Amino acid sequence: MKPFRRVFVVGGAHTTYMGKARADFVHPKQVTAERRNPTLEEHLQASVRATFEATGADPSAVDKGYVSNFLGECFARQGHLGSMLAAVDPALEGKPFARIEAACASGSAAIAACIDAMQAGCDVTLVAGVEVETNVRGSEGVDHMALAAHWEQQRGLSQFVFPHLFGVRAKAWKEAFGGTSEDLARIVVKAYANANRNPQALNHTSAMTLEHADTPSDRNFLFLEDPELHAHMRLTDCTAFTDGASSVLLATEDGLKRLGIAPGDCTEILSYAHSVRGLGKPTDGARLVNVQGAASQAYADAGITAQDVDVAEVHDCFSVTEAQHYPALGFCAEEDSPARIRDGSFALDGSLPVNPGGGLIGFGHPIGATGVKQVLEVHRQMRGACGDYQMAERPRIGVTSNLGGDDRTGIVMVHAAVG
Amino acid sequence: MKPFRRVFVVGGAHTTYMGKARADFVHPKQVTAERRNPTLEEHLQASVRATFEATGADPSAVDKGYVSNFLGECFARQGHLGSMLAAVDPALEGKPFARIEAACASGSAAIAACIDAMQAGCDVTLVAGVEVETNVRGSEGVDHMALAAHWEQQRGLSQFVFPHLFGVRAKAWKEAFGGTSEDLARIVVKAYANANRNPQALNHTSAMTLEHADTPSDRNFLFLEDPELHAHMRLTDCTAFTDGASSVLLATEDGLKRLGIAPGDCTEILSYAHSVRGLGKPTDGARLVNVQGAASQAYADAGITAQDVDVAEVHDCFSVTEAQHYPALGFCAEEDSPARIRDGSFALDGSLPVNPGGGLIGFGHPIGATGVKQVLEVHRQMRGACGDYQMAERPRIGVTSNLGGDDRTGIVMVHAAVG
Repeated sequence: MKPFRRVFVVGGAHTTYMGKARADFVHPKQVTAERRNPTLEEHLQASVRATFEATGADPSAVDKGYVSNFLGECFARQGHLGSMLAAVDPALEGKPFARIEAACASGSAAIAACIDAMQAGCDVTLVAGVEVETNVRGSEGVDHMALAAHWEQQRGLSQFVFPHLFGVRAKAWKEAFGGTSEDLARIVVKAYANANRNPQALNHTSAMTLEHADTPSDRNFLFLEDPELHAHMRLTDCTAFTDGASSVLLATEDGLKRLGIAPGDCTEILSYAHSVRGLGKPTDGARLVNVQGAASQAYADAGITAQDVDVAEVHDCFSVTEAQHYPALGFCAEEDSPARIRDGSFALDGSLPVNPGGGLIGFGHPIGATGVKQVLEVHRQMRGACGDYQMAERPRIGVTSNLGGDDRTGIVMVHAAVG
Repeated sequence: MKPFRRVFVVGGAHTTYMGKARADFVHPKQVTAERRNPTLEEHLQASVRATFEATGADPSAVDKGYVSNFLGECFARQGHLGSMLAAVDPALEGKPFARIEAACASGSAAIAACIDAMQAGCDVTLVAGVEVETNVRGSEGVDHMALAAHWEQQRGLSQFVFPHLFGVRAKAWKEAFGGTSEDLARIVVKAYANANRNPQALNHTSAMTLEHADTPSDRNFLFLEDPELHAHMRLTDCTAFTDGASSVLLATEDGLKRLGIAPGDCTEILSYAHSVRGLGKPTDGARLVNVQGAASQAYADAGITAQDVDVAEVHDCFSVTEAQHYPALGFCAEEDSPARIRDGSFALDGSLPVNPGGGLIGFGHPIGATGVKQVLEVHRQMRGACGDYQMAERPRIGVTSNLGGDDRTGIVMVHAAVG
């Protein structure tokens, strides 16, 4: 989908992505009335207020908005989040808000709906992505995450449904393309290295060595029950439970005039493609077929090729998901992905940095926020706003790929610097 | 919002709305492997397939779609419903679907997002609204419903949060405008009378007399704990837990050409207005302020006045909600609503039929489906498809009003017959 009314990313803000890896996180067992982690509503409020502050936009300028969130009912006992967004500022009262859910691709689905709304006449839109996940026991959290799969048909696969499904992918990827566990560990090491430069990242201060990521141990255990898959999923291959919010403000050219902001201070979304496959239907474990289709469409609509891409934010819910993204997004041939991992092509100082802020594994994965975070991170790289993890040369063309379930929802967007 | 590309309702389908009031419902305690109620997925599939059958449209014609659902995670342990929609038909694989949630207004929010998408270039869109609510104990179900309010701030109001909030409204409405409990009971009697003519309604075969609806008894009990509110909410004033799905197919003029369907076989959505107030913020108990604002906007955008309206589907989650809708939609002055209830103005044979198919109280309230059902019901009345509850004269202009929470999300649409 190529917008006929141009869509600009004006700016936005993340809250600090919280979880056990951060020193400022309060472990659930140590929570008191005085000392606790921010709630879903507090994350939402903070990211929205910081977005207005960062962009200088007045909340009254907003025409429409969406909250992206996957599991508010389960983790935070809260639905109706569109109405929670309206409560953030008196000037937002009476505006049209709702919540969009597409499992882990909720954020991009909400941005896509805002792009549609801007073609329909809205000039300034707001997307607030949020999730809180750390406030229940891990086993319960894992169960909630499984609602992105076909619960009735797939919950019997494992007590860890998604690690199981992506363990299948890790095994298939290695077998099909000659990749190794060490290659996947290198993706993890890159994620942490980038996150270590990013003060808002969950893993900002967590060290990660190739030896630790690649060696099963009592601190990096293999946990899948299935003997076929057991060796293919380590704790460090997975994202950790994360609380956080990311918001972005979007505007048309008319919207920018209303806001008094020049297009040259923004970035542009050139296209999006959104492809969904049936829940519980068979998948190809060796490749992201659905993402690949969405990427082809998004590139064609934007008039670019994979060779034009300078930076990418991809959905590394597990290390193998990033490995499978490289060919799905056209960054290399399928059989070359292990070699490209080994030669550092996708590192912060590589030829095509992928997830320079840490991605889902390094930065964190508060599910509803992730797609919004990806778009904002490409914007920030293009605007030179990334501090210690700023790319040496500001990217001109960027791609975001946000995944829901086991290659079920795929939303790919193409972004461009302006001016 | 007035679409610049015309939006037609091509048609759609409801599943039978199921719940304890129906003889074909299987009580949870009597469920066996062989004898059970349809699941969320089965309701979704059935309404979508029936929509393609009713319209003669091929699923491959769909450009985009949304599932509207409030509490799939809680009642059915299922999220990622956009991907479940893609699984309904092989021709839907690869299309862009997601789920929209705006509590009880989810259905209208999804239709609004499709209207936006159709301005952005889509020509055929699909909305599938679905909810399953009968498979848990009532107390648990009531708790889930409370997630449409501000859980942290408002759950302490009562074990029945929404009956409490609308009990406040019943009391305030009576005190402000001279209405009585009997007036509210008359709304209930009308709902059942209409539902008795509607074979898909939850209360198709349930009798309801004014005496029963108006007289507290051990079969129609007062259940609010608050002594101030106790007298203002009877069991029959409430909607009952309902399972069901409603789907509609929408098209632009280009979409109708693709489908080979004439505009004269459709109805048209002239406008929508979508207004959201902050969760947990104070409300005016005597009137639906937010709905009233949305209605004014929708009428202005459509170029109509309340006097032009021939039929309305309004959100009678409680009997008082319908009473408050009459003035909010401009059907009478606030102080006249009790008299208009008594003189039968809004009955099936009245001057302005409201909820001719039974509304939420009579037809049922599977939350995510309700807004979709309202739009389809206006379409069906305009097309003369309502059988025993068909209005004597087919309406030309219709209004739908779908509410989320305690006057928090209000979405009003104006509909017109074509040709």
